[in-house]
Amino acid sequence: MSYRTPVAEISFALRHVAGLDAAIAAGAHGDLTMEDADAILQEAGRVADAVIAPLNSVGDRKGASLAGGAVTTSPGWREAYRTWIEGGWNGLSAEADYGGQGLPLLLNAACSEMWNAGSISFALCPLLTAGGIEALSKHGSRELKERYLAKLVSGEWTATMNLTEPQAGSDLSLLRSRAEPAGDGTYRIVGSKIYITYGEHDMADNIVHLVLARLKDAPAGTRGISLFLVPKILPDGSRNDLRCSGLEHKLGIHGSPTCSMAFGDGGGAIGWLIGEENRGLACMFTMMNSARLNVGLQGVGVAERSYQQALAYARDRRQGKAAGSTDPVSPIVAHADVQRMLLTMKAYTAAARGICYLTAEALDAARGPEGKAGLDRASLLTPVAKAFSTDIANEVTSLGVQVHGGMGFVEETGAAQHMRDARILAIYEGTNGIQAIDLVARKLPLNGGATVRAQLAAMRRVAEAVQKDATPAFGHLGPRLRAGIESLDRATSFLLKALASNRPEEAQAGATPYLRLFGLAQGATCLARAALASNAALKAGETDPAHGARIALARFFAENLLPAASGLEQSVVDGGGFTQDGMLALAG
Amino acid sequence: MSYRTPVAEISFALRHVAGLDAAIAAGAHGDLTMEDADAILQEAGRVADAVIAPLNSVGDRKGASLAGGAVTTSPGWREAYRTWIEGGWNGLSAEADYGGQGLPLLLNAACSEMWNAGSISFALCPLLTAGGIEALSKHGSRELKERYLAKLVSGEWTATMNLTEPQAGSDLSLLRSRAEPAGDGTYRIVGSKIYITYGEHDMADNIVHLVLARLKDAPAGTRGISLFLVPKILPDGSRNDLRCSGLEHKLGIHGSPTCSMAFGDGGGAIGWLIGEENRGLACMFTMMNSARLNVGLQGVGVAERSYQQALAYARDRRQGKAAGSTDPVSPIVAHADVQRMLLTMKAYTAAARGICYLTAEALDAARGPEGKAGLDRASLLTPVAKAFSTDIANEVTSLGVQVHGGMGFVEETGAAQHMRDARILAIYEGTNGIQAIDLVARKLPLNGGATVRAQLAAMRRVAEAVQKDATPAFGHLGPRLRAGIESLDRATSFLLKALASNRPEEAQAGATPYLRLFGLAQGATCLARAALASNAALKAGETDPAHGARIALARFFAENLLPAASGLEQSVVDGGGFTQDGMLALAG
Repeated sequence: MSYRTPVAEISFALRHVAGLDAAIAAGAHGDLTMEDADAILQEAGRVADAVIAPLNSVGDRKGASLAGGAVTTSPGWREAYRTWIEGGWNGLSAEADYGGQGLPLLLNAACSEMWNAGSISFALCPLLTAGGIEALSKHGSRELKERYLAKLVSGEWTATMNLTEPQAGSDLSLLRSRAEPAGDGTYRIVGSKIYITYGEHDMADNIVHLVLARLKDAPAGTRGISLFLVPKILPDGSRNDLRCSGLEHKLGIHGSPTCSMAFGDGGGAIGWLIGEENRGLACMFTMMNSARLNVGLQGVGVAERSYQQALAYARDRRQGKAAGSTDPVSPIVAHADVQRMLLTMKAYTAAARGICYLTAEALDAARGPEGKAGLDRASLLTPVAKAFSTDIANEVTSLGVQVHGGMGFVEETGAAQHMRDARILAIYEGTNGIQAIDLVARKLPLNGGATVRAQLAAMRRVAEAVQKDATPAFGHLGPRLRAGIESLDRATSFLLKALASNRPEEAQAGATPYLRLFGLAQGATCLARAALASNAALKAGETDPAHGARIALARFFAENLLPAASGLEQSVVDGGGFTQDGMLALAG
Repeated sequence: MSYRTPVAEISFALRHVAGLDAAIAAGAHGDLTMEDADAILQEAGRVADAVIAPLNSVGDRKGASLAGGAVTTSPGWREAYRTWIEGGWNGLSAEADYGGQGLPLLLNAACSEMWNAGSISFALCPLLTAGGIEALSKHGSRELKERYLAKLVSGEWTATMNLTEPQAGSDLSLLRSRAEPAGDGTYRIVGSKIYITYGEHDMADNIVHLVLARLKDAPAGTRGISLFLVPKILPDGSRNDLRCSGLEHKLGIHGSPTCSMAFGDGGGAIGWLIGEENRGLACMFTMMNSARLNVGLQGVGVAERSYQQALAYARDRRQGKAAGSTDPVSPIVAHADVQRMLLTMKAYTAAARGICYLTAEALDAARGPEGKAGLDRASLLTPVAKAFSTDIANEVTSLGVQVHGGMGFVEETGAAQHMRDARILAIYEGTNGIQAIDLVARKLPLNGGATVRAQLAAMRRVAEAVQKDATPAFGHLGPRLRAGIESLDRATSFLLKALASNRPEEAQAGATPYLRLFGLAQGATCLARAALASNAALKAGETDPAHGARIALARFFAENLLPAASGLEQSVVDGGGFTQDGMLALAG
């Protein structure tokens, strides 16, 4: 079946969940109008449906291949990439100085979701480029910016992140790649990297590798790591001393080449320092934070696609007589249990979308008068956007297989591909366990807890509006939302106290259920905001059935998914006993 | 890393969770002693580790293949199957009349788990044969039994279940395969079947197909379906008119050939009726109930294997400094969040094992003085054993990937194979949604609710024993277990009332969260029984560290996984509103 970008739903979420309407009205985005924004979304949806979505299956069946050091992408991918960059999509929210369109990050986030629904593997390439643009913009020298930014913004050249080495994955302090000053302002880089996404490919004329390496005599650990720009093609047009030494054979995202990279086999790859010596990790985190939100959006995109496919199948496939039906054989969508699966898929997807958009909105706000408060809010939400969206992507795509029954297990159907592709999202750009620890150990303490408290207060205002509205169609939405937020509040207080009392292992033990709890409460709040807006529209006489659907979806989430909050709170607050005896239990 | 069957843990669960000790002491199993049982378990574990486990990876990489109508299994599989049947394992619990060893089903269940931990794909073949033996024993004519049972019990011949057709999956009333009496007591079968596991292969000399088909003028729907025995090789040694017309390209279990079967292309395959005309579905359900428990055990097996692999990796891989550690770089097993993942894997696996063993124990009891009460208990537990065990198999094997980080996404590691293989388990032999509806709509009403009430009472007795014991190491085990059981009790009452009030859609809407709730409460009870037995052993002076591990594991489950019970109860009791507006929410 053919995928259709849910443009109207995305536009509604931008306006009523992430407040794009209000921001535009407040003049936060210059002369951009909501009509402009909708026109961009329409066109992006068309490109995602017509140009990118058809690449997904061929990318799985005929993945990227390596021969003689050159990587060939899947049939049609090179041409599609050309079409896509010619549309100007790569630089949508990049600054105008280097050819970007300077549009809100929020709008770019919505488009990023669309590219990823089309094909995670394809969209990964510009995802990495975006991180490179950001790191170079913030930390690069004027000379490097002049040389590279315009080509990266246009997408003619692409960027990579070279972090991981076999012994150094989540723990970058263990890096061994070396860099030495050449005396002419450049450096010579020697080392091996693994898991380098689009480390080599045929879609662009040059690839700009951002490489973490250690200078001689640098301090041990993460404070001795520097970041270098190491281009595949040197400014004089010659090849740099680096090559792709292998491709991984992976569970999914076969279209995206995952490369082992060898730097300096011939003596040393030529690189330029980005930022200061030994401060490379800070520069890299600039890339990673943007990348983390984008990985969350990958989760939303693949979940949406999996949902659409499952819904279409469930409307078509007829088995059994549904309770209360007069039809002797019903489409399976009429069975309550199948509805539960589909609603779970749709509700989680919409919740994750809302959280990701809120994060992008906070980043936009940070560029405006809100400044640091916006940035702190984005910092708080980023691990939730990344981990919750990708956890639910695993669940949603697995449900997508389940709705198909036996057909889901057969590869031809395509349902299984979404599940295989999605499986990397909870792992890369910082595993979801690391996101949870980041949330608890670094983000909750921001401003002495004031950032998270403000977020809780914002959630409460939505819950109060729901309870005040008291529309019967809301069902238990009001009280359930309230209860979920209170669970999150108590769990937050517990963790802040554990941190303040220097009991880090207790905080870390509860990190993963806490992040899930945060995602559920924040996600339910997003759906409730959409439901409130839809209810207001219905009261104002609008007749679009999507309004009723949003109210029913928010109710479903609150009554069927959010109730997990109380158990998660319990797990955070008094489930941490295993840090005393966990090793014992595993020893048995 | 090499897999090791957890023989001691399995033996402990048989004795203290499923009461094998007590049953033996009561004389329920003739002259079988616990020493005999342990010797069998030891030898089965050795065979699983040495003969079957090494087949798993080659089965994935070089799956079964079809050429000229013949299916060749993976390298080494034919020989391993030969070794395995020569050990007498196929007929372990079959009746002695036809060469079986007549051992308890409970013991066979434990062995079945072992074969499946070795390789789901390999163990599927005898799993189907076991169903065939059961259907033939219960419903076959004397002549058919004489001709086929001994060969099936020995494993020289294998059996299949031919149910599914393209238009008839979960809904067998839509079957179109036809059968016509030939006038000589045999029938001619014509039709196409899909998803036939081991429908053709090279491991046995003959394949006994049990085929559902419709007689001319049979009533419409499921009351017009008959069951036929259709052998690949006819009694006179000639080939029957049936062939494998294709193999599916699947997400997992590549070693198991999933066949499309064509019966009667040459005019009609020769078949013999099993049971009465038009009563085929009842006969087939005999096979399916046994198969459902075995599929649950497949989930336990693959979960155990995934857990062992993840634990070994987590002990080996060093990244980051764990909180409270003096080591600058810790094995990742020392990090609280990784411990949470591993404990979740281990605890779910042990809980599912307990539920499956309880189900097998009930089947054994049904053969003895308990009779119908045992059978009803088994009927109640079977859908939970099947669906809970396979749901957690999906979760555990996905966590197994996650513990490996990026390495988990790379196929060479093997972690991803377990996840791919496990994914079929929640689908075949009745999807888990159908198991949930079976549990709610057919099993709860058994004996007017008395069967489920008795099961709840048995759970409560365990909770009371835990609270009475009051060992500090139990932590919150007592109150959490009690709360989980009370949640299950209230959800049960709600559903029984909905059924009695003729509101089937309300009951069906809550079926899936109800089954999960049942699995959590029953699983926690199983772990608590083990913890009580271990605690008694410690008090008696035993020093095996496995005792402390069992107590810690039960506590972890009760404090971190069982708390989901309250949210599930809420979802069952007032989450069903979506049956009124679910279609609306999906329409948006």
